[in-house]
Amino acid sequence: MDMLIRDVMIVTLDTLNEVIKRGYVLVKGDTISQVEAGDYKGSLDGIKVINGKGYCAMPGLVNCHTHMAMTLLRGYGEGLPLMRWLNEKVWPMEAKFKEEHIIAGSNLAMVEMLRSGTTTFSDMYFYQDAVKMCAKDYGMRAVLGFPIMGDDWESLLNSYLGSIERINSEKSDMSKAMLAPHSPYTLSGNALKSIAAAAKDIDCGIHIHVSETEEEQRIVMDNYGKTPAELLLETGIFEVKTMAAHCVYLSDGDMEILKSRNVSPVHNPVSNMKLASGAARIEDMLGMGIQVCLGTDGASSNNGLNMFGEMKAGALLQKLNCRDTTVLNGREMLEIASANGAAALGLSNLGRIKPGYLADLVMVNLNKPSMVPVHDIHSNLVFSANGSEVGYVIINGKLVMEKGEFTEIDEERAVYEAARIAGELS
Amino acid sequence: MDMLIRDVMIVTLDTLNEVIKRGYVLVKGDTISQVEAGDYKGSLDGIKVINGKGYCAMPGLVNCHTHMAMTLLRGYGEGLPLMRWLNEKVWPMEAKFKEEHIIAGSNLAMVEMLRSGTTTFSDMYFYQDAVKMCAKDYGMRAVLGFPIMGDDWESLLNSYLGSIERINSEKSDMSKAMLAPHSPYTLSGNALKSIAAAAKDIDCGIHIHVSETEEEQRIVMDNYGKTPAELLLETGIFEVKTMAAHCVYLSDGDMEILKSRNVSPVHNPVSNMKLASGAARIEDMLGMGIQVCLGTDGASSNNGLNMFGEMKAGALLQKLNCRDTTVLNGREMLEIASANGAAALGLSNLGRIKPGYLADLVMVNLNKPSMVPVHDIHSNLVFSANGSEVGYVIINGKLVMEKGEFTEIDEERAVYEAARIAGELS
Repeated sequence: MDMLIRDVMIVTLDTLNEVIKRGYVLVKGDTISQVEAGDYKGSLDGIKVINGKGYCAMPGLVNCHTHMAMTLLRGYGEGLPLMRWLNEKVWPMEAKFKEEHIIAGSNLAMVEMLRSGTTTFSDMYFYQDAVKMCAKDYGMRAVLGFPIMGDDWESLLNSYLGSIERINSEKSDMSKAMLAPHSPYTLSGNALKSIAAAAKDIDCGIHIHVSETEEEQRIVMDNYGKTPAELLLETGIFEVKTMAAHCVYLSDGDMEILKSRNVSPVHNPVSNMKLASGAARIEDMLGMGIQVCLGTDGASSNNGLNMFGEMKAGALLQKLNCRDTTVLNGREMLEIASANGAAALGLSNLGRIKPGYLADLVMVNLNKPSMVPVHDIHSNLVFSANGSEVGYVIINGKLVMEKGEFTEIDEERAVYEAARIAGELS
Repeated sequence: MDMLIRDVMIVTLDTLNEVIKRGYVLVKGDTISQVEAGDYKGSLDGIKVINGKGYCAMPGLVNCHTHMAMTLLRGYGEGLPLMRWLNEKVWPMEAKFKEEHIIAGSNLAMVEMLRSGTTTFSDMYFYQDAVKMCAKDYGMRAVLGFPIMGDDWESLLNSYLGSIERINSEKSDMSKAMLAPHSPYTLSGNALKSIAAAAKDIDCGIHIHVSETEEEQRIVMDNYGKTPAELLLETGIFEVKTMAAHCVYLSDGDMEILKSRNVSPVHNPVSNMKLASGAARIEDMLGMGIQVCLGTDGASSNNGLNMFGEMKAGALLQKLNCRDTTVLNGREMLEIASANGAAALGLSNLGRIKPGYLADLVMVNLNKPSMVPVHDIHSNLVFSANGSEVGYVIINGKLVMEKGEFTEIDEERAVYEAARIAGELS
């Protein structure tokens, strides 16, 4: 059913028409058809009308790096030093994960993300075929990262190729598949070469961790005499369109490589702070024209999947790190968290409220105390909102949440199942 | 009316009994009377019963440093460099503020704080007599900081003494008054001496900005050859119980001074990041046994008053700054944000859920997706909650919010009035 959002403030992220104080958005099928100030004058026959009075419509947020099912590990082993946390808590629990656990954790992740305005995710975790079904059930736009790590890399790689080709052959904007080699320090140079060749062969993107920690830098430098980015360039990974998560420790030369190969770094500020990894040089990357995007990482190192919180943390960290209060303003951060992420995922017609763009948008309640007054809507969305102000979620032209309630998703069941399964596993 | 919260998880912050997985809290009058596991067996005659199933009760949060009415400036002049922002935007708008504006801004601040679990505030702004009335109307616990700055310091000081003595003579736990000299760089040494003497004379506390920026350090060092903390020690300010906001640039010697004089630094991590001021050495201060507490600063440099967001930001920043993921865990941060803040304000029987303590507590909905599962409730409260999970607020034994709705406060009016007035002023 076509949809009209009327009497609404619109944050378009369209440079021609940044903020419409009062206007309408007409959605036809899965696409945004009209975005105008004032009132819609056309026929309302067969159109679902949403009264946007008191709301701001903005592009749905794009979470470019997460491990969804790790919601089941939220707060688990909290406070332990990194290696004890992984060895004694995270890895033993993950070893027990079966498909049913991934489904429960992913469903929980999706209700959490939808409630806080995320409409597209890029996941990296096991059982991505099942995650695709979860996303389909919940109506979320999904980029599925099939994970490869450890000594079994070759059999894992081979086991994924059929699924990835099948998913990408559907040519749907609602789901795509990528290869997700874990990192340059957990896979050999030869493995990375084979994965790059396979990705080129089946024409899929790559999602990988790059330069998250100082330790990782040291390991790769000791083994290869190269930085992780240099190694990835040499192995051919960067000949494929790549999402590089974290990118905390990039040299100037590494950034030149990313720029020249059109690699998209995914900033994960909360995780980088929580794990004491460091502060990525986002302002420098933006200055070079690198397409930075944003992600929450998994719930076990965040400990949530709230992109509003991530936008605020990212902007704050960069201001502090650059010792400059003017860097990374609200407008720039919104672009990073929506249009940049979409483009990095190969969805160049997503992430703005603009005719011809895919109809993923959320509506934020401007009458919540934290959103009043509106001197600068971009600032309010990034620095004042906490995500709970989202009242409506529309994905691919379908209404997923209306007045704070899911239209079809059984949130109570998602919460119940995840709590039950986490209790059993821990 | 006495009150029983039954069937509830309780985060007590009482070392004898940290977390009660399922128990009850009995409130008699303004005081917590019983905190026990299991079921209450006494009579329910004349007792209001709250079903806490699915909730966690925790102490109400204490926002130790804010400028409430600056909610009216939320996002105003965003993105300008600091001095242009102040000169061209903040100060011209503030110059227009009259009592009615302060009331509107403070009421907005209070609904925002209550919705995100804050039950006590320590304000520093003009028209504190009016703010006291606002707090009384809304049932919030208030510490009123009467502000002094500029050349008129002496007449301001003299004009406040009557109000402060009157408020403190009420000997109410619901409101106290302090003198709030702005800072060692905006007041002369002589002014600080006179203010310290007056505070001693009328036996009130002091709330002051200390060492927020490098620029401030330089100014004070150039003028006096001393650090701000050394100057405040010399002028007698620290002979009075003092709340020192920010404390970003403290030397080891400054910290020794704070420790020896029982000064409470108020950490404002979001503001310190947003204004690119720096990262306070909280872990070092805690290691010395200094009573650190937490505040949001004003909405114009945050841009909200959400203590849940502040707790997360504070813990994240300290982990990053110390390059140690184990520092400032959830339990420690909750203590900073409640019991430490209460003690700093002179309310030593506030900030824990413990018999004999004042009955300020909030209940957090554990069935929100972001709060599931509960492996570690302290971690979930600090790192996963965004503040919107607060469903019940009890202050001084009175139910202020129930199932997400205010019992008496007219939130719609508070929001409407603040938006209207901000629109007129800007």
